[in-house]
Amino acid sequence: MVEHSQITLYTNPNSAFCHRVEIALAEAQAEYSSFIVDLRNKPSWFAAKVNPLGKVPAITYGGPHTAPEDPAPESAKIAESLVILEFLADIFPEARLLPTDPVLRVQARSFITATDRLLFGAFIAFFFKYTEGADQILLNALEEVQRRLPPTGFVIGEWSNADISVAPLLVRFPILLKHDLGKYPVGEGPKVLEILQGPKFARLMKYIHELEQRPSVRSTWDEAETVELWKKNPYAQRN
Amino acid sequence: MVEHSQITLYTNPNSAFCHRVEIALAEAQAEYSSFIVDLRNKPSWFAAKVNPLGKVPAITYGGPHTAPEDPAPESAKIAESLVILEFLADIFPEARLLPTDPVLRVQARSFITATDRLLFGAFIAFFFKYTEGADQILLNALEEVQRRLPPTGFVIGEWSNADISVAPLLVRFPILLKHDLGKYPVGEGPKVLEILQGPKFARLMKYIHELEQRPSVRSTWDEAETVELWKKNPYAQRN
Ligand SMILES: [Ca+2]
Repeated sequence: MVEHSQITLYTNPNSAFCHRVEIALAEAQAEYSSFIVDLRNKPSWFAAKVNPLGKVPAITYGGPHTAPEDPAPESAKIAESLVILEFLADIFPEARLLPTDPVLRVQARSFITATDRLLFGAFIAFFFKYTEGADQILLNALEEVQRRLPPTGFVIGEWSNADISVAPLLVRFPILLKHDLGKYPVGEGPKVLEILQGPKFARLMKYIHELEQRPSVRSTWDEAETVELWKKNPYAQRN
Repeated sequence: MVEHSQITLYTNPNSAFCHRVEIALAEAQAEYSSFIVDLRNKPSWFAAKVNPLGKVPAITYGGPHTAPEDPAPESAKIAESLVILEFLADIFPEARLLPTDPVLRVQARSFITATDRLLFGAFIAFFFKYTEGADQILLNALEEVQRRLPPTGFVIGEWSNADISVAPLLVRFPILLKHDLGKYPVGEGPKVLEILQGPKFARLMKYIHELEQRPSVRSTWDEAETVELWKKNPYAQRN
């Protein structure tokens, strides 16, 4: 058992970016403290002492154990979900968040680079800013993710950061659509879900089902909580 | 001496993204073949056999030695400059493109994530799409890069991928401004350069000077060639 330095995660259950980090920490069976940052009323010490940009997720690593509200100057402060995933892969090699083979490592990173902005862009376009054609943007993005999956299994075969990078959004899509949650027109959610459940997206839906079953995803995500949060999320309300 | 698999680089001297990879390969003293892709008249095999997106830089790694025009199906095909830099750090550990300490590694990656789009966005805004205020966008981006530098030395102290990621643009700025090359109004280049040479940007200019002196940068970049390419570059011409 490797003795690790302290880790404190600053997070929020509304954030799919934070969910990435929570999955990776669960994969590593890391011990860590966590603190939920109220995104509409951020404590002033957060930008001053943890992340100058004020964004979550962020972690502190190392230094003395302190309360999350009182981060130690000695700890490293790390922000940006994908940067944190790389860091966790480095400090928890036994968790195999990235494989050791450089060609497989680059495949994982290529997948992340190719899908990250595409998927988040489509998510924002469809759920938060809905304009005509946003359903097609979403379906195109999901088709591109599907195109990059191998015939079976995870992105590079074995589980990796590549799967962690897309899991938070991919597991949310079917639930949000089923409950018709988001800014798109009433009834559009179930319609898009029907397309996803058709033959064209069979590979993707199988993959999403496997993501849902992964213990690190199950232990960090609650379908009912997501639905409740979305019903209250002001950015996701229809006008 | 580690025996390495074949590497073929697909590149173009107009591309600062390609320049990143050339610097990293020079740092690693890697043996490789290179092929210049004519960006206005790409050979059809390039998208079919190397990078479906048709973009440079791209590399092939492994498989039999073949001519660059005839890439082997067995080789790994890797695109995106930052993904390639990570790959080269993995396969050439002795080049220390990234340090071994995870906290230093994450500092390098955080710098890259924070500056990559900012700097390229400002570059495009000022040199290629000039509109009112683009000079301030450029100066703000450069100020942000400067703010992230330590008092002396390279980004994380020792040389790393972080320096490689910004070197191609940073060494080009003073030269292009001096020669007044780009879409901005005539005479604006030397004016912006004068600001950069003032006390506010002393730290950044010292850093740029150290980048210019780095052997891997010197051997992969020719100031006069850049000026000649820009004089002919249709995207950089004033209307
Ligand atoms: Ca990255």
